[in-house]
Amino acid sequence: MRRSSTEEWMVPTRWYNIVPDLPKPLPPYLKPNGEPVAPKDFEMLFARELVRQEFSQERWISIPREVRDVYLIWRPTPLVRARRLEEALKTPARIYYKFEGVSPPGSHKPNTAVAQLYYVSREGVGRVTTETGAGQWGSSVAFAASLFGVKATVYMVRASYLQKPYRRVLMELWGAEVVPSPSDRTEAGRRFLSEDPNHPGSLGIAISEAVEDAVKNGAKYVLGSVLNHVLIHQTVIGLEALEQIRQFDDYPDYVVGACGGGSSFSGLFWPFYYEKKVGKAEKDVKFLAVEPKAVPTLTKGEYLYDFGDTAGLTPLIKMFTIGHDYKPPPIHAGGLRYHGCAPTLSLLVAEGEVGAVAYGQREVFEAAVLFARTEGVVPAPESAHAVKAAVELALAAKREGRPITILFNMSGHGLLDLAAYDEYLRGALPDVEPSAEALAKHIEKVRQLQAARP
Amino acid sequence: MRRSSTEEWMVPTRWYNIVPDLPKPLPPYLKPNGEPVAPKDFEMLFARELVRQEFSQERWISIPREVRDVYLIWRPTPLVRARRLEEALKTPARIYYKFEGVSPPGSHKPNTAVAQLYYVSREGVGRVTTETGAGQWGSSVAFAASLFGVKATVYMVRASYLQKPYRRVLMELWGAEVVPSPSDRTEAGRRFLSEDPNHPGSLGIAISEAVEDAVKNGAKYVLGSVLNHVLIHQTVIGLEALEQIRQFDDYPDYVVGACGGGSSFSGLFWPFYYEKKVGKAEKDVKFLAVEPKAVPTLTKGEYLYDFGDTAGLTPLIKMFTIGHDYKPPPIHAGGLRYHGCAPTLSLLVAEGEVGAVAYGQREVFEAAVLFARTEGVVPAPESAHAVKAAVELALAAKREGRPITILFNMSGHGLLDLAAYDEYLRGALPDVEPSAEALAKHIEKVRQLQAARP
Repeated sequence: MRRSSTEEWMVPTRWYNIVPDLPKPLPPYLKPNGEPVAPKDFEMLFARELVRQEFSQERWISIPREVRDVYLIWRPTPLVRARRLEEALKTPARIYYKFEGVSPPGSHKPNTAVAQLYYVSREGVGRVTTETGAGQWGSSVAFAASLFGVKATVYMVRASYLQKPYRRVLMELWGAEVVPSPSDRTEAGRRFLSEDPNHPGSLGIAISEAVEDAVKNGAKYVLGSVLNHVLIHQTVIGLEALEQIRQFDDYPDYVVGACGGGSSFSGLFWPFYYEKKVGKAEKDVKFLAVEPKAVPTLTKGEYLYDFGDTAGLTPLIKMFTIGHDYKPPPIHAGGLRYHGCAPTLSLLVAEGEVGAVAYGQREVFEAAVLFARTEGVVPAPESAHAVKAAVELALAAKREGRPITILFNMSGHGLLDLAAYDEYLRGALPDVEPSAEALAKHIEKVRQLQAARP
Repeated sequence: MRRSSTEEWMVPTRWYNIVPDLPKPLPPYLKPNGEPVAPKDFEMLFARELVRQEFSQERWISIPREVRDVYLIWRPTPLVRARRLEEALKTPARIYYKFEGVSPPGSHKPNTAVAQLYYVSREGVGRVTTETGAGQWGSSVAFAASLFGVKATVYMVRASYLQKPYRRVLMELWGAEVVPSPSDRTEAGRRFLSEDPNHPGSLGIAISEAVEDAVKNGAKYVLGSVLNHVLIHQTVIGLEALEQIRQFDDYPDYVVGACGGGSSFSGLFWPFYYEKKVGKAEKDVKFLAVEPKAVPTLTKGEYLYDFGDTAGLTPLIKMFTIGHDYKPPPIHAGGLRYHGCAPTLSLLVAEGEVGAVAYGQREVFEAAVLFARTEGVVPAPESAHAVKAAVELALAAKREGRPITILFNMSGHGLLDLAAYDEYLRGALPDVEPSAEALAKHIEKVRQLQAARP
C-alpha cells in the first residue's frame, strides 16, 4: 500500500481496450507502399509490450503492480459535482468533472507515460526519446522516467523552449535532458538549422528528431496520444469515473472531453462506451468531442489516410485530418494543435457514435474563467474546451427544462498557463480560425496522397 | 454530496483547538499600554465568529456545512508513503507525507481562507483586505472570496508584484483586486511612496495598508497564519492524517513541518498532540518544526513580547522572535520569511514539547530535488524544509538501525516556484544566514521594548 485510502480499490487493476468493441474493424496502419504495418515494424521504435498492446484484440489488459503503485501517488482522481457552476448557470442539469490535474505533472498524461516507461525499463532499455511542444507531455515523460531510473531526452520546440522556461525547468528538475529543436543532434535537425540557424522549430520537426535519435542510438521512442496503446492506458480515468458517478446515484447523459490527439477524451468515454455496448449503461449516453475552431479536425476535416507527423515519417493512419502540412495557429491550448485524431476516435466519429463540436479561443477562456470563479479550479486551456461544451449543454438543458447529467474531463490544471489567462483578462486574446479555402487546400493534398498510393 | 468519495467521511466535521490542552495558559495579546486585548478590540478588524474562535477555550469547533462543502473539492488530501524515497536513502524508516498541494491554489492556505471568507460573508460584509508577499496567501483569499461572492483587495509587495506576475494573474483570475504596495490608497502607502516613488514594498507595509483600508472603509481584514483561529482551521490536515496513517497500521514517531508563522505545521501536529495529551497516542510521538537558517526564529530567537508586524501596528504577542524590524533575506521560501511565530507554537517550544531545527537554502533544495526525482511531487520551497528534516531523520534512523515512522507535511507544490529550482539546478542559489551580531541587535530592541512597557 502506497496511499492511505479507502478508495484504493477504486484504482483499476486493468485497462480497457475498445478495439474489439468497435462497430467495424480498425483500418490498419499502412506503410507508404500501401502494405499494412506489422508489429515487428513498430518494435524498432516502441517497447515490445507496447506494440503487443497496440495490436491487441483483448478487451482487458492487466495493469502491472509497479504501474498501479505509481498511479496510487495521485489516483483515484476526484470526481466532483460542480454545484456552484450549476447555480451560476441556473440550470436543471447536473454537471460533474473528473479532475486529472492532481497528478504531479498536472495533467492526465502520466497515466500513459508511467506505463510506457515501466515497460521500457522492464525490457532493459536505458533511455527514451520524445518530443514536446508546450511541455505537458515532455514533463510527464520526465516524471515517469525519473521514477523508473530511465534517461529521457526531450526534443522541445525551440520557440517554446525559449518562451516557456518553466516547463523546461520542470523536465530538468525530474532529471530529463531537454534539447531545443531543431538541434545539431540529428540529421533532420541539422538540415533545418542549415536553412535557418534560429529556426523556431515545430512539433513535426521535433518528432523527426526524437524518432531519428531513438532508432540510431538504441533508445526507444515514446508517444503521448493518438495510438491505441496510449489511449488504452488512459482508460483508468473512465473506469474510476464509472464507479464514482454511481456513488452519486447518477449516470451521465453526456460524456464530454477536449480532443487533440484524443487520449484524454478516450480515456474518459471508452469505459462508458463499453457499458453501452454490453447493455450495462443506465442511460442512452452520448459522447461529445470538443476541439478548437483553429484546428477543426473532427468538425471540418475528412476521414482519410494521412501521416501522423508533419514530415511524413510515420505510417499512414486512417483518421480525421485537416492535412499533415496544416500549420495550427499558436493558440494557447497547445495540446489540441494536432492536424489529425486517434484512429479509434476517428472511426467512431465517422460511424456517428461520437459527436464533435468546435469553439473559438475567447469563448473557451470565458467559460474557463467562469469555472475558476465558481468552482475554484483553474482549467488548463485544453480542458477549458470541455468546460465550454459542458456549459453550452447545461444552458440548452435549461432552455428545454431537462435535468440531464453531464460529465466532462478536466484533463489538467492551468497553473502553468497563467500567461494565457493574463492575455484573456487584459482583452488581448485573439480568435483565430482558418479559412475554408486554406483547409480545402491542405485536405486536397491528403486526397492526392491517397489516390497516388500503389 | 459534492465529491464522489468513500473517503468523504474522513473530512472532519469539527476543528481541534489546542488552547485548552496547552501545558500553561496562553499569555494574552497586549496593547502597547500593557493591557490585554479584549475580543471587542479585534472585532473592528475580524469577523465576530473568528474573534470568538480566537479567544475560545473549547476543544472542538464545528465546521459549518458550507465550509466543509468547499473542502470536499480537494479534501481529504492524500497521505502517501514515500517508498521510493525510503529506497533511495536505504533507510529502515517509514516516511509518509500529507500532501496539501492538491488544493486549487496549491497549498494548505485555503483551509483557513475558506473558513474566514465564509464567516465574513455570513456576517454580511462585502469586502475583505489582506496582504501577500509571493502570493500563496493572497491567491487562497482570492479563491475563497470568489466562492462566497465577497470582494477581495490584496496588497501585494511591489517587488513580488513586478517579479512574480503569475500569482498576481491567479488572484485576478479569481476576481480579486491586486494592488502593488506601497500604494496611494492608504496614508501608510502614501507615506512610503513619498519617500521613494519606486519603493519595493515589504510585507510589513502591505499589512499596514490592508489593515488601514479595512478599518477606514468598513471591510474586514483576513490573516493567513500566527493567530489561534487560523491555526484551528488548519487542523483538518492532522485530523485526516490520524485516520489515514492508521489505515497503514502505523503511527508516527516524528511529526515534522516547515515553520513560518506556524499554521501548516500546527495544522498537522495539533491532533497528534491531542492524542498524546489524552493518552490515545500509540507512540511517544515527537514534534519537529523546521525553519530556514536565514530566518531562525525558533532556533536563535527569544521568547518575548513583540509586534506581529514590522510597523508595530498589531498588538504585542508573546512569541519566539528575532525582532519585528529584522529584514529576512530574499530566500525563495517566501512563506517562511517571518520574524515571529504563532504564540501557541512558541509556548510549546518554550516548554520543550516541540523541537526545532534550521537548514540552509541549498541543502533544502537538494532534498527537494531528491524528493521530486524519487516521489514525483515537486515540493514548494517552504515544504522542502520539511522534506530536508525528514531525510535527516531517516538517515539518522539508518545509522542507528531503527525502523522509525516519520510523517511530514508537504504543505504545497512548487509548480509556481520553478524559477527557484532553475536557479538551484544552475548552481546559482545562494545560502544566506544572518550574523550572530545582527540577530542580537534586533532581539535587543525587542527586549528594550519589553522593559519599556508600562
